[in-house]
Amino acid sequence: MSVLIDRRDLDFVLYELLNIEHLAQTSRYEGQDRALYEATIDAAETLAEEQFATHAAESDEHEPKLEDGKVKLIPAIKQATDAYVEAGFMGMSMDAEAGGMQLPWTIAQACAAYFCAANIATIAYPFITIAAANLLSKFGSEAQKARYLAPLVEGRFFGTMVLSEPQAGSSLADIRTRAVPTDDGHYLITGNKMWTSAADHELSENIIHMVLAKIPGGPPGVKGISLFIVPKFLVNDDGSLGERNDVRVAGLNHKMGYRGTVNAVFNLGEQGGAKAWLLGEAHQGLSYMFHMMNEARVGVGLGAVALGYSGYLHSLKYARERPQGCHPGNKDPASPQVPIVEHADIRRLLLAQKAAVEGGLALALYCAQLIDIERTTEDAAYRDRLNLLLDLLTPIVKSWPSEFCLEANKHAIQILGGYGYTRDYPLERLYRDNRLNPIHEGAHGIHGLDLLGRKVSMRGGAALEALFVEMEATLIQARALDSLSEAVAQLEQAREQLAATTATLGALRDGGQAPRAMANAGIYLDVFGHVVIGWLWLRMAVIATREAAETRGSEQDFYSGKLQAAQYFFRYELAKVGERLALLAAADDTCLTMQDRWF
Amino acid sequence: MSVLIDRRDLDFVLYELLNIEHLAQTSRYEGQDRALYEATIDAAETLAEEQFATHAAESDEHEPKLEDGKVKLIPAIKQATDAYVEAGFMGMSMDAEAGGMQLPWTIAQACAAYFCAANIATIAYPFITIAAANLLSKFGSEAQKARYLAPLVEGRFFGTMVLSEPQAGSSLADIRTRAVPTDDGHYLITGNKMWTSAADHELSENIIHMVLAKIPGGPPGVKGISLFIVPKFLVNDDGSLGERNDVRVAGLNHKMGYRGTVNAVFNLGEQGGAKAWLLGEAHQGLSYMFHMMNEARVGVGLGAVALGYSGYLHSLKYARERPQGCHPGNKDPASPQVPIVEHADIRRLLLAQKAAVEGGLALALYCAQLIDIERTTEDAAYRDRLNLLLDLLTPIVKSWPSEFCLEANKHAIQILGGYGYTRDYPLERLYRDNRLNPIHEGAHGIHGLDLLGRKVSMRGGAALEALFVEMEATLIQARALDSLSEAVAQLEQAREQLAATTATLGALRDGGQAPRAMANAGIYLDVFGHVVIGWLWLRMAVIATREAAETRGSEQDFYSGKLQAAQYFFRYELAKVGERLALLAAADDTCLTMQDRWF
Repeated sequence: MSVLIDRRDLDFVLYELLNIEHLAQTSRYEGQDRALYEATIDAAETLAEEQFATHAAESDEHEPKLEDGKVKLIPAIKQATDAYVEAGFMGMSMDAEAGGMQLPWTIAQACAAYFCAANIATIAYPFITIAAANLLSKFGSEAQKARYLAPLVEGRFFGTMVLSEPQAGSSLADIRTRAVPTDDGHYLITGNKMWTSAADHELSENIIHMVLAKIPGGPPGVKGISLFIVPKFLVNDDGSLGERNDVRVAGLNHKMGYRGTVNAVFNLGEQGGAKAWLLGEAHQGLSYMFHMMNEARVGVGLGAVALGYSGYLHSLKYARERPQGCHPGNKDPASPQVPIVEHADIRRLLLAQKAAVEGGLALALYCAQLIDIERTTEDAAYRDRLNLLLDLLTPIVKSWPSEFCLEANKHAIQILGGYGYTRDYPLERLYRDNRLNPIHEGAHGIHGLDLLGRKVSMRGGAALEALFVEMEATLIQARALDSLSEAVAQLEQAREQLAATTATLGALRDGGQAPRAMANAGIYLDVFGHVVIGWLWLRMAVIATREAAETRGSEQDFYSGKLQAAQYFFRYELAKVGERLALLAAADDTCLTMQDRWF
Repeated sequence: MSVLIDRRDLDFVLYELLNIEHLAQTSRYEGQDRALYEATIDAAETLAEEQFATHAAESDEHEPKLEDGKVKLIPAIKQATDAYVEAGFMGMSMDAEAGGMQLPWTIAQACAAYFCAANIATIAYPFITIAAANLLSKFGSEAQKARYLAPLVEGRFFGTMVLSEPQAGSSLADIRTRAVPTDDGHYLITGNKMWTSAADHELSENIIHMVLAKIPGGPPGVKGISLFIVPKFLVNDDGSLGERNDVRVAGLNHKMGYRGTVNAVFNLGEQGGAKAWLLGEAHQGLSYMFHMMNEARVGVGLGAVALGYSGYLHSLKYARERPQGCHPGNKDPASPQVPIVEHADIRRLLLAQKAAVEGGLALALYCAQLIDIERTTEDAAYRDRLNLLLDLLTPIVKSWPSEFCLEANKHAIQILGGYGYTRDYPLERLYRDNRLNPIHEGAHGIHGLDLLGRKVSMRGGAALEALFVEMEATLIQARALDSLSEAVAQLEQAREQLAATTATLGALRDGGQAPRAMANAGIYLDVFGHVVIGWLWLRMAVIATREAAETRGSEQDFYSGKLQAAQYFFRYELAKVGERLALLAAADDTCLTMQDRWF
């Protein structure tokens, strides 16, 4: 039994829920087929198990060290990233003309699920590199691409994203790093950065830093932020490495989890200025970053799902093997112990995990598919609608798994009891790793503000409308199935209440009461996520209802499990949203009116 | 600003909510007064800050090591426990005739809150010793007390509780450790124990192990368990130390948190048998342990509260100091940043913590006071009623803070963002430490079974009735205050629905459907806790309403904060129970009917 991701479930999502093979009918993915996708995922699963899972505990226990100004990692990390590069995964979803395999991003995310479940700290190095390469590919000049892109795709260079500063985390408008133009076509950057992941290491020959900085004289706030390429070693015209640039890791952050990932205080320009090249146009830096953010945030959500998923499978395995106690009502002290999976409360903890991680996986891959379709469709109106939908779902896909798959990890620990609390099992590490996800790539509260303050009302509520159209399509199918009538009624009611609450809060905001309308945005984010996950569970239940009737044996068990998890989600989770939406609709101001001095 | 426990709040609970000075009117606490209690707590606060908080990060980073069969701790732990012993805290609540200070257990718990908030891993050594001493004091023979009790109270000996085995955690009925009588009046014990905290160390001259074992030929299951005294070094008649007993730490558990506390695989009798002396009567071991369990479980709950409390104060301090972003609606990029405590979502995360930790503190000290009154009252009927109430509340006081103050720690990390995720701040450690609390002293699910399966129905529901009488007393006071009418209505409704749901599930169980009635006991536990905490918040709100009207300045701020936190708890938390109780009343069988093969 694999303890990373359930392959049967992954296949269900890809081929039964999303019908991902359809992408092969587009020109970008022409000639591809399910067999190719399966072989790719097979390779990822094997590599994840054999090279990534194997050192997850070791790299957690022996975190990166700064010695003589250099960052030292345990050797197993380089061995794993080398194997990843060698297998061609770095360019998996990149354009063929850039040296990539040009596979759908959804397939890349399916593979990513295995790597994240196996060792999210080690896979971070390639993933940040891929993000940097994508930025370069999209916004770099031809000359820049010629110089940097191929080595990134080939894994000879790795990349980073250098955004936050000690005083500017959630609020990038406040960054102070300065980029001063020179007469030689480059800029000189000085500044102190914070939270830079993969800021330094020796996994690759060179590191290409993507750095946000302000050009003096530019507009204030976010409109004055530009994006720069800052190589660790300058790259000569012939591709050889030149001088060491003026960038330095000044200290390492010692984290709760994700310990294998270098995360650093990163200083630029201590010796006079780091040589930097403007990417795209001046003052457009943040908009370039935002172009990549939907993908990055789907990636964070997928990572949270993967950590939750592996915890679920570990705890399921344990619950099947561990004898303890006997059935309720059995008072005979001589009766043998039963495996704890027999206990209703253990099943509840398992069902809660199953509902969260399978629902989360469906959401993450659904969003990944939106990106693929958006990238390939020739129908502009359709693309626009998917774009809206993706913009709306981005805060959800980033935040819902970060919250509820972390909760799943908590349940997994509980099933193992004392053992789950020890480092002999990976559960506590998964939980520690997952605790990062509500923090990075936009803290949870920020996404609440984004969703309620911007996304649901943009273009007259068109994105919300697009989501409701998708929900209605599912409801139409579900209404034909008697066994789903309870779930249908519940989702209909939740959707209506969500729409009404959103309208109420929108009117309040437009009526000059924005602070009050926004005061509970964090709760709105969670509730909205529950409705979305409820919709996806209904979609899955529609398929499972049909298939459970037509299959036997382990296949029927699989679909029966889907139906039971859907029922769990509706009765135990979606049932909560009515009360939360009522709280929101009342625009409760308890938090808003709380005074600092009262704490 | 202290970042352990808010002393103003602690004083509020002790002197305004519980009127703890009244205990001094009983013969046991005669001559004591508030000044004595305050001085004792002052001393605890200072000691906690100066000797315990100071090495919390260090002992987390450098956990105990097993070298040449001996357990090595960092020196700061011994320095702290020595100071604790020297200040007389070990015997704080013990009888004067045993060398103790005979202070109320409530005051001991108030002091404990500081030590737990400062360093829960180090204070575990004295606390386990106190528990062992209490067992000895209550059930030991005069000869045993003469030999072991004084050294324990004086801190020359430390103690342990040796209960679990690798195959018997939640299910003590299954322990296999055997105690065979000899002709010399002692027994020889052989067995392998697990999860033994403080199993070995060099903090004291000797360690007195309290060991559960079965005497061959005794009844099966829990009725055949006896309790034994097993000293690490035998104690001669003159009190000097004799031979090393046959007990050995075979390995250390490497935990997620509580890292400073030795937790071990502990083997007895590898050389033929550990010399052991029966405590009390044969086969009564578990009932003796149960006598101590109410106290132990109040202690766990109090510890969970303290960890949550310190996280709350740390995050509040940070929120007041950290500038980031500006007020909603302010679009001027040149406007200065505001402290994040100004943001509504941060206030929500702070209020959620405040409601949980102050509610939890009230509950833990309320239960501690029940123990004190029960111990001192001469009114048998009153004692009986308090006994019932305490039995009912024990699963709540152990479990509710373990769940919701852990959640509070999660919020505290979130307020600090990336900083909260690093080991430079104590938040992530508090969170890791707190994750143990739902696991030890009876796992969360076990307490759900205890509450729903036994406590609410014992003696015809007399305990539940006793709780409702207490609630009604509060409601009578609250009904006189118009500003509390919303809360009153909410608590009345919750109480009625809880009573009705409990009756429904009881009828189902008595009707032969016990498994279904018990299937959601874990949820019942959480909901019941919410109703109890809601009641305590109403009690606090009654006092705060009166005082807020009659005070000014910082005192008025304090009471205004209490009222706002009460409002938060009612609207944002207690509001959830209606839906949960409906789920319970429906006796939903989704978890029960889930099949292993469907996962």
